[in-house]
Amino acid sequence: MSSSSKIAFIGLGNMGAPMALNLLRAGHQLSVYDLSASALQVVREAGASIADSAAAAVQVADIVISMLPASRHVEQLYLGSAVGSSTEVPGILGQIAAHALIIDCSTIAALTSQKIALAAQARGLAMLDAPVSGGTLGAAAGTLTFIVGGSARDLERARPVLAAMGKNIFHAGGNGAGQTAKICNNMLLGILMAGTAEALALGVANGLDPKVLSDIMSKSSGRNWALEQYNPYPGVMENVPAARGYSGGFGVDLMYKDLGLATEAALSAQATIPLGELARNLYAMHSKNGAGAEDFSSILKLFQNTSK
Amino acid sequence: MSSSSKIAFIGLGNMGAPMALNLLRAGHQLSVYDLSASALQVVREAGASIADSAAAAVQVADIVISMLPASRHVEQLYLGSAVGSSTEVPGILGQIAAHALIIDCSTIAALTSQKIALAAQARGLAMLDAPVSGGTLGAAAGTLTFIVGGSARDLERARPVLAAMGKNIFHAGGNGAGQTAKICNNMLLGILMAGTAEALALGVANGLDPKVLSDIMSKSSGRNWALEQYNPYPGVMENVPAARGYSGGFGVDLMYKDLGLATEAALSAQATIPLGELARNLYAMHSKNGAGAEDFSSILKLFQNTSK
Amino acid sequence: MSSSSKIAFIGLGNMGAPMALNLLRAGHQLSVYDLSASALQVVREAGASIADSAAAAVQVADIVISMLPASRHVEQLYLGSAVGSSTEVPGILGQIAAHALIIDCSTIAALTSQKIALAAQARGLAMLDAPVSGGTLGAAAGTLTFIVGGSARDLERARPVLAAMGKNIFHAGGNGAGQTAKICNNMLLGILMAGTAEALALGVANGLDPKVLSDIMSKSSGRNWALEQYNPYPGVMENVPAARGYSGGFGVDLMYKDLGLATEAALSAQATIPLGELARNLYAMHSKNGAGAEDFSSILKLFQNTSK
Amino acid sequence: MSSSSKIAFIGLGNMGAPMALNLLRAGHQLSVYDLSASALQVVREAGASIADSAAAAVQVADIVISMLPASRHVEQLYLGSAVGSSTEVPGILGQIAAHALIIDCSTIAALTSQKIALAAQARGLAMLDAPVSGGTLGAAAGTLTFIVGGSARDLERARPVLAAMGKNIFHAGGNGAGQTAKICNNMLLGILMAGTAEALALGVANGLDPKVLSDIMSKSSGRNWALEQYNPYPGVMENVPAARGYSGGFGVDLMYKDLGLATEAALSAQATIPLGELARNLYAMHSKNGAGAEDFSSILKLFQNTSK
Repeated sequence: MSSSSKIAFIGLGNMGAPMALNLLRAGHQLSVYDLSASALQVVREAGASIADSAAAAVQVADIVISMLPASRHVEQLYLGSAVGSSTEVPGILGQIAAHALIIDCSTIAALTSQKIALAAQARGLAMLDAPVSGGTLGAAAGTLTFIVGGSARDLERARPVLAAMGKNIFHAGGNGAGQTAKICNNMLLGILMAGTAEALALGVANGLDPKVLSDIMSKSSGRNWALEQYNPYPGVMENVPAARGYSGGFGVDLMYKDLGLATEAALSAQATIPLGELARNLYAMHSKNGAGAEDFSSILKLFQNTSK
Repeated sequence: MSSSSKIAFIGLGNMGAPMALNLLRAGHQLSVYDLSASALQVVREAGASIADSAAAAVQVADIVISMLPASRHVEQLYLGSAVGSSTEVPGILGQIAAHALIIDCSTIAALTSQKIALAAQARGLAMLDAPVSGGTLGAAAGTLTFIVGGSARDLERARPVLAAMGKNIFHAGGNGAGQTAKICNNMLLGILMAGTAEALALGVANGLDPKVLSDIMSKSSGRNWALEQYNPYPGVMENVPAARGYSGGFGVDLMYKDLGLATEAALSAQATIPLGELARNLYAMHSKNGAGAEDFSSILKLFQNTSK
Repeated sequence: MSSSSKIAFIGLGNMGAPMALNLLRAGHQLSVYDLSASALQVVREAGASIADSAAAAVQVADIVISMLPASRHVEQLYLGSAVGSSTEVPGILGQIAAHALIIDCSTIAALTSQKIALAAQARGLAMLDAPVSGGTLGAAAGTLTFIVGGSARDLERARPVLAAMGKNIFHAGGNGAGQTAKICNNMLLGILMAGTAEALALGVANGLDPKVLSDIMSKSSGRNWALEQYNPYPGVMENVPAARGYSGGFGVDLMYKDLGLATEAALSAQATIPLGELARNLYAMHSKNGAGAEDFSSILKLFQNTSK
Repeated sequence: MSSSSKIAFIGLGNMGAPMALNLLRAGHQLSVYDLSASALQVVREAGASIADSAAAAVQVADIVISMLPASRHVEQLYLGSAVGSSTEVPGILGQIAAHALIIDCSTIAALTSQKIALAAQARGLAMLDAPVSGGTLGAAAGTLTFIVGGSARDLERARPVLAAMGKNIFHAGGNGAGQTAKICNNMLLGILMAGTAEALALGVANGLDPKVLSDIMSKSSGRNWALEQYNPYPGVMENVPAARGYSGGFGVDLMYKDLGLATEAALSAQATIPLGELARNLYAMHSKNGAGAEDFSSILKLFQNTSK
């Protein structure tokens, strides 16, 4: 597919910048915006045009992509600042061309995604929520997974653009469903990792070798992604964060944030997630112990017997 | 290997009986004993000789295999009844030939396994703990997994006999390590299943299709054995307990028992297993709701929103 | 203080109606509004004037009191329906006289209280959050406890009116602090009750008499309000819900709601409440078992060994 | 009651030594034994006679009192070392005079208490379990609380001796009931303290003053011993461990041990204690953070937001 789109890209952080670079490599024209000037440097050099504001960036775009840290940033971008706040800023929905498609790749509350999608629809604009998994390495390699909420037709319009940034594209359901599915997966991942760490620490405390135990469980019913692809016990696998002091990878504070989103989703739907909420508190305590910036597999430390 | 062994087999329950039948099919001579006469019927017809007591069964055996429900039964079999109990019964260790190898296939506390192995060693007898996974179907098909604790040399002696009953044989470490590794795996499985059920119920409560969500998580970092092989949500997979009203499979009360063994192992080694102990209490509450005999994947019901 | 105030009272439910009656008895003039006509009957007979709308009720009031079920009702009353909703209704802030004092007695999220108080201040209006404890019996007897957030000066203005409905008045801090303090107290209560029930069930399962154990713990460091004033074990105390099949009292679903508010408060402030969130899930599972309308001390049933 | 008894006292640690001193002050004759010679110094100076062994200490005693750290020490003292251990030592039951009364004041598993009491009865000896609360200060002041299991008749024989060491004497039931009641109380205390700490930390994270919140909850349904007598938040109360850097008091590791005993009691009776087992893991994680020797009210630190 050789067609080039005019894309506005808002949010050039650790994830957004490499995603934007892949879009440029695929031949798209990018108009970009970020509050931080330094974040824009590398995409400018790669050919993006720098807009003075988010509103300016989106004005002639066919596709608007946003990649921001949390619900409040995305809400403020599209809907403007809250009534009653000291500085009222209008949202950018009014600046987006009627034919354009909005793709929000941030990981945020499904309720916020749905609220913005409704406001967009009221203006005749189409919107997808398309949170990603795969981390900064996947963003750089163009192998991200997109979990998409919105209509199937809008997803087909988005597919060529998403394919320039990722490898797997899932359609989870209507607006907000991408966020919900991602948060369900990440809650489960948070439980798998903590549960795997508990099982390994329990075995070692009772005299087992963590590598032997990992081998046995990987071929048994304890098998799971955290155990097999991302083993938290140092010395069991190479090329994972546990092999390099838990640097790199997916940070404790990011997992903590996602478990907070899962808890919000449980509160709004009256769902029962006892393990999920306990996991949220375990990562919180681990973060308060000073491990917030370490990879989330370091949760093992919370369970390990120390020298005493 | 065509050699036939003289094997004593104690405990012909739902697991023991099909295991004994596979040994008979492989050409071994069996002397069997069980407290229940009816349990013995089928193995008698298949060619086993029925002993009057456990002590009588083991007297000329080269290999002694036991498959009993819990720690106290195994301890009483080998070491006799506790000092001070009303009826003192001697253990069978004194009846076993000096060259014989003891293989206990029961799932019991590692501390009990180690205590019996020590008492056996004091009499010059070799012992392995070899708990199994694979359930009654695996026992019948001869495809069990054995997780073995004891010396590598003793495991080599046992291998031909174990191979007649199972497919995978893991060496976890010294005496008791088989029990520890199995219990670590099963604790992790209990967490995986409950965590998977929470994630699916959370998604459904927020409007997702459980099949779509299962597909997405199976290709993402939430991937695990419970989700992929044994999905707890009715309608997602065929040929699993969830597809037949949670009948068959691995019972809630068996998982509850194994999580109790994991908790014992944590207490004795000062290990920290917050998710494991919470899972123990979740299966306990589910059992008290009347689901003790259902398959353990029915834990989903604890998290599902009902009609209200 | 003999002065009579003109009071608008919005929300005449199980709590609001008896509170309004006490205000009438104290000689105040009431203009009342509720969506349900039947709720208004008893206060009409006691002398209140019935308004056609909330907006009409508040127009000449010196004091506006609201007593509504949840955050969204209170937000809609004062601020109007959300932007983008199908039927836009304006809030009543614009109808309230400049000198009037607003007292919201609902139990809602502190963030919602603060948001409304800010919007009120922007119009020059003073507001207090004043959630209550004491239940329907306390409302009828005029012995409620008010936990108040807002300025000390506004609290002094409110004091004569609150004193007509309650006995204890606490000043927790600025706007929202009343809600926060109430929710902290109720989270702790939810933990005390469940913990007391666990301890009693553990003792009974191990052969103790629940009355003897209650006596011992009441004179020891396990002493707490749930154990001494509201014992959950049937047969230990008279005149508590446990003595009458857990009817009356403070419902499981109300405790579940309050633990949800505590979890929201933890999410917004990055607080760690592992026992609080586990308690939330315990009451949720108990409610799903069909006990939502029972008194919250029935949580004991979740922990009791049944006949098996 | 002026009568003097011949008492053997085994275990002169931080608790045992001041208890023995109070017995000497009350005019009893003491024969004492401890593995540590230094522990014996102070009681020797106060008039106790030092025995060469536990067996020698008990030979002419009317009353035998033991105060040891854990189940295994008490079992070894009375029943001897386990069969198969390297050094077999006989228990002291055989050395105790037939008319003597045994009082074990250690906090141990109820099952162990019952096992020893059965073995004693088999020899015609009467035994009580009488664990204490009140700590080292209560031991020194003679104001301990005894929670007693055994027959009412034996308790009457013990009462004058217990009264020399303590103020409150509860009869919980038959043998082992003293241990069970103490462990139920201490499990509840562990939950009260952690729950109180969570509630205070949640309030502070949301802007409340811990003293104001403590005052409000102390007069409300959150009222409990930990909040009122032993507040964990620094600055709220004087003369509690929180006021002196959490030194003194009841150590984290002692609470951790007691929650382990509660978990053992739950396992043996199939009881469900989700909050109790979570509390066990919370104190475990806190201990691993280095706080094992601090007062248990320091569990607050696990929940506090730090500078970040």
